[in-house]
Amino acid sequence: MSKLTLYSYWRSTAAYRVRIALNLKGLDYETKAIHLVKDGGEQHSDAYRGVNPQGLVPSLVTAEGDVITQSMAIMEYLDELQPEPALLPENPVTRAQCRAAAQTIVSDIHPLDNLRVLQYLKKQGWQQDQVDDWYAHWIHQGFKALEQQVKTGTTDYMHADHPCISDICLVAQIYNANRFDVPLDDYPRLTEINRRCLVLNEFANAAPEQQPDAPEVLS
Amino acid sequence: MSKLTLYSYWRSTAAYRVRIALNLKGLDYETKAIHLVKDGGEQHSDAYRGVNPQGLVPSLVTAEGDVITQSMAIMEYLDELQPEPALLPENPVTRAQCRAAAQTIVSDIHPLDNLRVLQYLKKQGWQQDQVDDWYAHWIHQGFKALEQQVKTGTTDYMHADHPCISDICLVAQIYNANRFDVPLDDYPRLTEINRRCLVLNEFANAAPEQQPDAPEVLS
Repeated sequence: MSKLTLYSYWRSTAAYRVRIALNLKGLDYETKAIHLVKDGGEQHSDAYRGVNPQGLVPSLVTAEGDVITQSMAIMEYLDELQPEPALLPENPVTRAQCRAAAQTIVSDIHPLDNLRVLQYLKKQGWQQDQVDDWYAHWIHQGFKALEQQVKTGTTDYMHADHPCISDICLVAQIYNANRFDVPLDDYPRLTEINRRCLVLNEFANAAPEQQPDAPEVLS
Repeated sequence: MSKLTLYSYWRSTAAYRVRIALNLKGLDYETKAIHLVKDGGEQHSDAYRGVNPQGLVPSLVTAEGDVITQSMAIMEYLDELQPEPALLPENPVTRAQCRAAAQTIVSDIHPLDNLRVLQYLKKQGWQQDQVDDWYAHWIHQGFKALEQQVKTGTTDYMHADHPCISDICLVAQIYNANRFDVPLDDYPRLTEINRRCLVLNEFANAAPEQQPDAPEVLS
């Protein structure tokens, strides 16, 4: 099989998810870096809009040249392309609850706290503390519900004894929340699972700082 | 099989999606209405938070009493529970592109334009025209990309000759956009597919106005 290509940005939360999934699957891929800040954002270029009309990362190009956008769709595709190791639990209800937890992050936290939204709010005249409050509000709304849903769980990860898409989304979102200094003390089960994930090579190698497009000196 | 129970609100975009999916599958279900506006919102009650800690609709209770939240997770669950008629295309890449289109709506349009977000913005002092601009901005961002992705398609619906989850999400979002008077003239393929869906009984019967909790006189 020829290589997969991932349009990525080292610090993109959604691209981070897909990198973890690719690593868990042991799939080789080439990174094409799309700098989300430089020159007003390379994601807005006509060239990249030709790949992904939304102008967002990540995008995956399959070995056959087909483009798949949206991190959740890409992770589901990878799970169908190569079923082992599974990124979803086997039991149908647990699978659904795993997908639901992922969606809580992918739909109800991240899109609100994404770069383009924070930029919009700043253009409306919001001060940094207003933006920070907004950011933290949606993190807490989502994480409170997630902690409640998994706090009595006995599995090593959120929904299974192996990492699934819910864990992948959690790790990438906690990385992002840490950048914004959001305190996560109220989420002991979530942060414990995050720590358990971070020591795995597949997660460690997907980390933003390990990416070819990460700057040598971090801002 | 005993009945499924859907916690729903007649005008909720996400609950509308699940109602269409249930109808397409021909699955019988009981509606429990959660009024999102009355008394500050019944979704915030302790009783409902016990079902869904996010305090959002929809939630599905399975015949066995398990709770599944998040419309995308519920639709995927229903598609696994009863594979026919399929809510996803067969081809793996087309399946992925169908899921991606759904995610463009479910993650990148709807959460930004959802009730709780508009309420947050108003609390920050935004005027109605500022909120309307915000609302329309995210509709256009998403629909522009979607139109681009499907405009050359030759299938009856977005990704297949039968309605899939992408079409379900599209119909519910267009209903919502119409409420906010967002002009959709720039999206001929999307609006054509919307019209094709709306004449199907499974879509028509899921419409907000047809729900048991819809008021007799619409505001």
